[in-house]
Amino acid sequence: MRAAAPLVHNITNFVVMTPTANALLAAGAAPAMLHAPEEVAEFAAIASALVVNIGTLTAAARDAMVLAVRAARDAGRPWVLDPVAGGVTAFRRETVAQLLCEGPAVVRGNASEIIAASIGASAGRGVDAANGVDEAAVHADALARRIGATVVVSGPVDYITDGTRAVEVANGVEMMTRITGTGCTCTALIGAFLGAGLPGLEAATAAMVLMGVAGEVAAQGNPGPGTFAVRLTDALAALRPKDLDQRGRYALRLTGTLAA
Amino acid sequence: MRAAAPLVHNITNFVVMTPTANALLAAGAAPAMLHAPEEVAEFAAIASALVVNIGTLTAAARDAMVLAVRAARDAGRPWVLDPVAGGVTAFRRETVAQLLCEGPAVVRGNASEIIAASIGASAGRGVDAANGVDEAAVHADALARRIGATVVVSGPVDYITDGTRAVEVANGVEMMTRITGTGCTCTALIGAFLGAGLPGLEAATAAMVLMGVAGEVAAQGNPGPGTFAVRLTDALAALRPKDLDQRGRYALRLTGTLAA
Amino acid sequence: MRAAAPLVHNITNFVVMTPTANALLAAGAAPAMLHAPEEVAEFAAIASALVVNIGTLTAAARDAMVLAVRAARDAGRPWVLDPVAGGVTAFRRETVAQLLCEGPAVVRGNASEIIAASIGASAGRGVDAANGVDEAAVHADALARRIGATVVVSGPVDYITDGTRAVEVANGVEMMTRITGTGCTCTALIGAFLGAGLPGLEAATAAMVLMGVAGEVAAQGNPGPGTFAVRLTDALAALRPKDLDQRGRYALRLTGTLAA
Repeated sequence: MRAAAPLVHNITNFVVMTPTANALLAAGAAPAMLHAPEEVAEFAAIASALVVNIGTLTAAARDAMVLAVRAARDAGRPWVLDPVAGGVTAFRRETVAQLLCEGPAVVRGNASEIIAASIGASAGRGVDAANGVDEAAVHADALARRIGATVVVSGPVDYITDGTRAVEVANGVEMMTRITGTGCTCTALIGAFLGAGLPGLEAATAAMVLMGVAGEVAAQGNPGPGTFAVRLTDALAALRPKDLDQRGRYALRLTGTLAA
Repeated sequence: MRAAAPLVHNITNFVVMTPTANALLAAGAAPAMLHAPEEVAEFAAIASALVVNIGTLTAAARDAMVLAVRAARDAGRPWVLDPVAGGVTAFRRETVAQLLCEGPAVVRGNASEIIAASIGASAGRGVDAANGVDEAAVHADALARRIGATVVVSGPVDYITDGTRAVEVANGVEMMTRITGTGCTCTALIGAFLGAGLPGLEAATAAMVLMGVAGEVAAQGNPGPGTFAVRLTDALAALRPKDLDQRGRYALRLTGTLAA
Repeated sequence: MRAAAPLVHNITNFVVMTPTANALLAAGAAPAMLHAPEEVAEFAAIASALVVNIGTLTAAARDAMVLAVRAARDAGRPWVLDPVAGGVTAFRRETVAQLLCEGPAVVRGNASEIIAASIGASAGRGVDAANGVDEAAVHADALARRIGATVVVSGPVDYITDGTRAVEVANGVEMMTRITGTGCTCTALIGAFLGAGLPGLEAATAAMVLMGVAGEVAAQGNPGPGTFAVRLTDALAALRPKDLDQRGRYALRLTGTLAA
């Protein structure tokens, strides 16, 4: 990815803009955050990939998202969806349902968000996962097949599926749930790997392993969450492919549904 | 609060979204930031408490705030108001006056903001307090009685009043005024303690003591403001009730007005 | 500047609000971020200076910017423009062209942004400079003369011109391009020095030297970008005029065009 330095267009939530931009820079990508309906289509066609995150959704942002993803698709650019708290309100459920029809390459959320995206109904409260990854895996498989995308369930062990193949990533630390924006950053990194040319399953796996290993490095010495967040950015910048080869803990298998 | 892990709905300003979310996580609460008029009422009824902060106010945000506070009130959920720079422009004075009629459990601001909220006229310039806490105390008492809420004046010694009883909190360090968002974070923490079930005066006292002690811990060794901000988050995560019992410096008394 | 403690009004992008506010506080200024069309004109006349940054531009923000800069001008307050990614979309080109007609005291951007501002056409992709500072200098001179402002081209050696005199600032480190918001922070600091009473060329030089030296201090020991960002804020707070006198590396000369 560092060689490609993909330009990643983010229509993302206001809570995570700063840490997301810094994480993308640390990982070697070029972040751009812009969300005006007047320009998103023009820019989405220039960028290497698009990241859509509904955390601080508004009606104007939803319009911009639809314009942008259609322009990205028309220009052959991949895009990734983060359906933050996607099942919690009717406004979010409708927005997620609409965006899922627009051909994302990857969808990433926690267990509750992925279940909500798959079944179109409420699950969880706010941004926390009220469901387990295992419970969400079958819904992730179904969603992946229905929309022809890669679906990522974040959790203690991440589950990544394209409906046929699944990858489980065991990297990461609990502290990552104690600071804001780690999930959103994973999604942005998936966008960066998509922008660098990786297909959905590979991009998602690379991003989840990178973020997980960075979290493990940052957690050394058991720092508080403020220090951890700083070190996480440091780690993202310092890690190299060989580190991920050595420290990555992931396994490919057929999806549970198919294997059964 | 860590046992309750209250879900805290924030309609807050864009400058402090990231540090506020991290502070709430560090203190054991679950933050959610969402502000679309299409969904705030639905979400406010789900959350344990609501935080309304007018720092980067817009007309759309004002509409969302009114919808949210009414939904919170109807659902029996407490809410806290931070009237950032509330006396500085006509738009802010009108918004603050409107929100004060909607039954906040707590109002927190600096001396100039609380005087402006109480008298409905300009005081101070921007986010800095041009008035002293002593000067604001009588206005805080009057405001508390008028709207039936707890009112907090932040300063070197914080003044917290419900119109009858007052608490003074002496914790905190001057460095807290040198980074952005410490006042807003206090307000968010008040929201978290309200969400955990504490009444207004107790929630405000707990939040101001927690934040003040965390500031004292973070200031050890006299770091620069960047390092201080990181350690402040670390301290919020590390502090336990017994630390606050040992280090909290606060005293209850009858309000100045009544005692006179 | 610390004595003046200028109140700096920012209509700025959502990615950099937190670090910009902290940098202004560290440097001794009083930041205020507000952008509602209902109040920006009123506030711009109160503040010492205005900073306009189009990073996360929207139509509403553009309207607010125009209202604010006119009010600032009418009140005799200087303002500085940061045309982030200004050449990349038609929406940005039109906005920049409109704002350049409203009398900014200073315009600061990277080489691609300044070329785009000067020639009114696209240059660069996103926020990264695709052009060199040398290439941009002649365009900066022309722009400075056309609009009667000081123009700053950020880069390894910054180029600051009022169309007659030019200053080159050699301070700064490459790491500053690896975290988000350093350019935007430079612009905000220019606003702060304008607010403290310095004329355009002097304000821009002071800001670029301050930021460059702070970057050099923060880069000692070669930290990762997370740690670097924290130390940058620390350094901005710690530096004093004598440090800048000792460490500043800049030179005044006639502009290339005139000297030729």
